[in-house]
Parts: sequence; C-alpha cells; structure tokens
Amino acid sequence: MITIIAGTNRPNSRALRIAHLYASLLAQRGAAHQLLDLAALPADFITNALYDNVGQHPEFNQLVKLASEADKLVFVVPEYNCSYPGVLKMFIDGLPYPGGIRGKKAALVGLGTGSQGGLLALSHMTDILMYLGTAVLPTRVRLPFLDQHLTADGELTNALYQQLLAEQTDQLIAF
Amino acid sequence: MITIIAGTNRPNSRALRIAHLYASLLAQRGAAHQLLDLAALPADFITNALYDNVGQHPEFNQLVKLASEADKLVFVVPEYNCSYPGVLKMFIDGLPYPGGIRGKKAALVGLGTGSQGGLLALSHMTDILMYLGTAVLPTRVRLPFLDQHLTADGELTNALYQQLLAEQTDQLIAF
Amino acid sequence: MITIIAGTNRPNSRALRIAHLYASLLAQRGAAHQLLDLAALPADFITNALYDNVGQHPEFNQLVKLASEADKLVFVVPEYNCSYPGVLKMFIDGLPYPGGIRGKKAALVGLGTGSQGGLLALSHMTDILMYLGTAVLPTRVRLPFLDQHLTADGELTNALYQQLLAEQTDQLIAF
Amino acid sequence: MITIIAGTNRPNSRALRIAHLYASLLAQRGAAHQLLDLAALPADFITNALYDNVGQHPEFNQLVKLASEADKLVFVVPEYNCSYPGVLKMFIDGLPYPGGIRGKKAALVGLGTGSQGGLLALSHMTDILMYLGTAVLPTRVRLPFLDQHLTADGELTNALYQQLLAEQTDQLIAF
Repeated sequence: MITIIAGTNRPNSRALRIAHLYASLLAQRGAAHQLLDLAALPADFITNALYDNVGQHPEFNQLVKLASEADKLVFVVPEYNCSYPGVLKMFIDGLPYPGGIRGKKAALVGLGTGSQGGLLALSHMTDILMYLGTAVLPTRVRLPFLDQHLTADGELTNALYQQLLAEQTDQLIAF
Repeated sequence: MITIIAGTNRPNSRALRIAHLYASLLAQRGAAHQLLDLAALPADFITNALYDNVGQHPEFNQLVKLASEADKLVFVVPEYNCSYPGVLKMFIDGLPYPGGIRGKKAALVGLGTGSQGGLLALSHMTDILMYLGTAVLPTRVRLPFLDQHLTADGELTNALYQQLLAEQTDQLIAF
Repeated sequence: MITIIAGTNRPNSRALRIAHLYASLLAQRGAAHQLLDLAALPADFITNALYDNVGQHPEFNQLVKLASEADKLVFVVPEYNCSYPGVLKMFIDGLPYPGGIRGKKAALVGLGTGSQGGLLALSHMTDILMYLGTAVLPTRVRLPFLDQHLTADGELTNALYQQLLAEQTDQLIAF
Repeated sequence: MITIIAGTNRPNSRALRIAHLYASLLAQRGAAHQLLDLAALPADFITNALYDNVGQHPEFNQLVKLASEADKLVFVVPEYNCSYPGVLKMFIDGLPYPGGIRGKKAALVGLGTGSQGGLLALSHMTDILMYLGTAVLPTRVRLPFLDQHLTADGELTNALYQQLLAEQTDQLIAF
C-alpha cells in the first residue's frame, strides 16, 4: 500500500491536486494506494492530539492509520517560508512512538510558486525521515513556478513536470 | 525590545523554562524583553488563523504582535524528530505578509534530550529566517541531554550551558 | 576591507566573472575591496598546505591573508553537485586556527546552470560560516540558469540579476 | 562489491581507521569489499584531474574505478568545519559524468571530536548523494568525541559505537 500525503491543510491546495495526479499515476500502474489529505486534521489537533494526548484522539488516529498501514509514502510538500509546512511537521510530531512512519520508504515532491520548487523543504524533510528510519528515494522531484503549470481543477499543463512525476512513480514502485 | 519565543505548545515545556532563564539574563543586562509562549496559541489555530484567515484571529494577532513589535528575537527550539517543532513553523506560517518577523535579528537556542541538541533544527530554522530577511547570530547554542541538566522548576545545573547562554545574550545585545 | 572570493579554481570561471562584477559594484560605492581567486591555489595545496602543514606554505599564506585581513567577505559559490565546490571547502579547511575567516561578516552569491542557483550550496556554506563565527547576510542571492545570462567576457545581461547583486552590495556595506 | 571511502587525505586519519574497522565487519559477514583512501589522491589533483582534465589522470582514474565499480559505498566522513572535508567533495567533483557514483546505494558514518559527530556533514552529504541518484541508508551513524574512543592503532573502545557500526553494516548488506 502506498499512501500519498497532501502536506498542507490549506483548502483545495495545489498539494492536494498534485496528490490526486499522483494517485492517477499509481492507478495506471496497478499499484494499491490511498490519499491522506492534511486538510482533514481535526480542528482541535494542536491541543488534543499532541504530547500527553498522543494516540488518544480517534479522528486523528484514523489519519495516522492511513500513513502507518502503508509500506511506502509519497509526501507532496508545498514550500512554506523556504521549508515544509508547519502543519505537515505537526502531523509527524503527533505520530505514535514506535510505529507511525518508521521503517518505510518514501518519495518526495516539492511544490513552489517561486524558483526553488521546495528544494530546502525537501532537504529538511529528508533529515526528518532519515531520523525516523524511513528510506527516501534519491530522486526528489521539484515543481517550481507551479501556479503557471497547474490549473484550478488540477490539470498539470507542463510536460516535463508530468514526466518527472511519472518517472518518480516508477522508481517508487521499484524502490 | 527583545522577544523570547518558547518554540513549542507543550505544557510546561523545557523550552519555556529556558525562555525564562533567558529573560533573567536579559533582565540582568537591563535589556527590554518579553516572552512569547506558543502554549498560548488558540486551540482553533489551524483552522481559523491560517491562509485566507491570516490576520483575522484577534487572539492570534496578540501573539503575533509580541513578535512583530520586537527588533530582536530569541528562538528557543526543542528538537522534535530531528527538526524544529511543527507548531513553531505553523506560527511562522501564520504571520502576516509583509511584516511578521521580517528584517529583524535573531538568536537561536536548540534543546534536545539526545546528543544533537537541536543542531539540524537550528540549521533548518536558519534557512527559514534568512528567507524572511532576519539576520541570525552566528553563535547557535545547543543544549544536548538537557533532561539531565534542567530541573522541573527550571534550574539549569550545567555551568557550561549557563555560560553559553550568557555569552549568546551578550552577543545578541551587541548584534 | 571587503574580500570577494571566487569559489572555484576552474580557469576563467563564471564565479570569477561574477566576482569582478561584484568588485565593480563595490568600487562604484567607494568601498575598499580586493579579489581572491581560488584558481591561484598552489598546485601542491592538498599535500603541502593542510593538516600538519597548516600555515607553512608561503604561497597559500598569501591567499589566506587576502581573506583574513578583510572584515567582510563575499563568497561567489558555483553549485557543484548540489553543494559548494570541494576546492572552496579545502581552502577553508586549510585556514589557520584561530584566525582565518572567524568573526567576520559575509555575503553569499550562488551560481548555477540549472534551476537551483546554488540554493543548497548556500545553505551548506551558511552552516560552515556560522560554525566559524562569521555572520551571514540573510539575503542570499541565487543566479540560476547563469549560462544564459552571463557572456564569456563577463557581461551580465539579466536586469533582475544585476539588481539582486546591487541590493546585496548595499546591504553588505551596511551590515 | 562494497567500497569503503575514507573521506579525508589526512595521513593516518581516524577516518581510515574506522574504514578498516568497517572492512572487518564486512569481512565477518562475507561481503566483498575494498577500501578507497583519499590519502592516495595524486598530489597534482587540483590542477590536473578536474574540469577540462576530468578522466585524463591515470592515477586518479584508478581511485575512481574503486568507487565506480562498487554497487554500494560506505562514506566515512570526518567533520571538518561543521561539514564534510573539502577533499572528499573534490573527489566527487572530479568524478566522470555519467558514471562515477551515480545510481548506487550508500551508508554514511560521521566522525567528530566534538559533540556533533558529523551530523551536518552527513546532512550535506545526503543532499549531494541524492542529487547524484545514489540512495542513502536512513541510518546515518554518528561517532562524536571519537578521540576518546579510538586508539592510535585503530581499536574502537566504545561498545555502543561498535554496535552502531555493526547494525549499519547489516542494514547496508540488506539495502
């Protein structure tokens, strides 16, 4: 099972649209997959699902399960202030120990409206995932200037970007 | 004005205790300062203070003001999963543009219960702060194995750690 | 005194051409400056100027002096394999302790023929410089796709790139 | 074939001693291996093996072959100025394109005489290796304060460090 994580809780995010595209690529290849949209995080997450409350929030636990039951993960990571979104890290900070996303394999996709395309965000994410014992596919895809290449209804109009995602999909399946 | 940010919303965190120690060091030197504890983040922060709601949550705006009205900042950053806490980044992701913490000067203190003492967390934070145009004091203090050197009521029993914080305080005032 | 370091020993490098442009910007502002081209590193550097031989190679010491006598440094850093050039780090590894480039102020310019423009190279360099107690200007300029914007005789044809360098020059003088 | 790279040209380096220990661990498990000591880099490396001369230095080509013919690599990386040694990066900068160390699998070991144990060096190395399409084992071993735990003739007296290396060896063989 491959779980695709849309790494922000922004409503109708570009990350979510790219996550759906990734799901299509996996479907075309017959790979079992599911989607975890961080927009589904419970509203009381920061007070009732962290620290002493880890593991005790049923709604959050459902989201955790989507990640923990997968053997491979795709992180679609929009660039927020030159790093990953805080909400994505909070999700990780709220995962149970042991378990959570330890010992899995992961692919990283960075999104940005500027020229970086999430490069530092992906580097920071790699440090976290390696600490958690999750192997990261060396091909880290970046999609800079994404607002110019992704329509509001989720069509990716850039052929190179399509190719990069397709190649990474193949690599993740073989990883 | 120097604002000390306790970089987690964990109740009675070590970060908060170190922030109070830092406040004492600044007080001894006659430097105006105040404390911003992320434990005060509103419970509905992730749904009502981000994205289209930036700037519209009065309680959150009060916290933002504590940071934005300072000319220097101290970030006390506990190491969570080999990086900074997600909640600290969410605070930053929720800051208004322009404004927020742009164009300031900052000192970084990393905390950890392991040997790293927040080293990667401080490196990641530096990338963010530089992106925001905030100059970072080159002396980045790390306090590894902090559980062995900080009591429950906030006494720091390690003389070297005390010295590192005192030296950084002097440097921040002169920065 | 501001020393501009062309961060590679590649003959007639783009880094050297950008370093000359930076010198012009400093000259226009009446700021004392000089250039350190790593192409001048002695051919026996890796065997006769490092480790037990630090400080004992007269030709290398002349280069070191160009950096150590400055109070501010500009590092022009081409992206080699997604980080800074090895030769630039070898120069730093060969600096005397204490002294060298400790306690200075620095500006970073990243060059690349791809889309990253040296972003990770500048992040890695920042970690090194902060460790050495050298403050880094938060504005880290990146010049991606530079082969399309820099002629063989050193003319920079991209107006935005010119503006970014000019703004950083002003900031470095005020830093 | 697994090639262990002692990541410095310092004579009789700790990196070389750890590389020999790693070779013993691989030998005990019956894994084919060889050692590449960067102390063997030709003295004229920086002038005659880089840039336009890539691939034309027979002595250097012999070293390259040791890395390129392996399918897995171990990088023993001493911490120099809070990053990897410049000479290690120069070796990488001198590798042929395509080829070199692309498409392999790698394990990273960080060495330090201080508390960091090469943490940032390993993070920077990971960025480079991923750019080169080489997968990095998530377990990145750090050996801080190594001068207290490694004798001049290469005996590692710290049981935990021995265990970390042994576990990583097993993981690399299975990677």
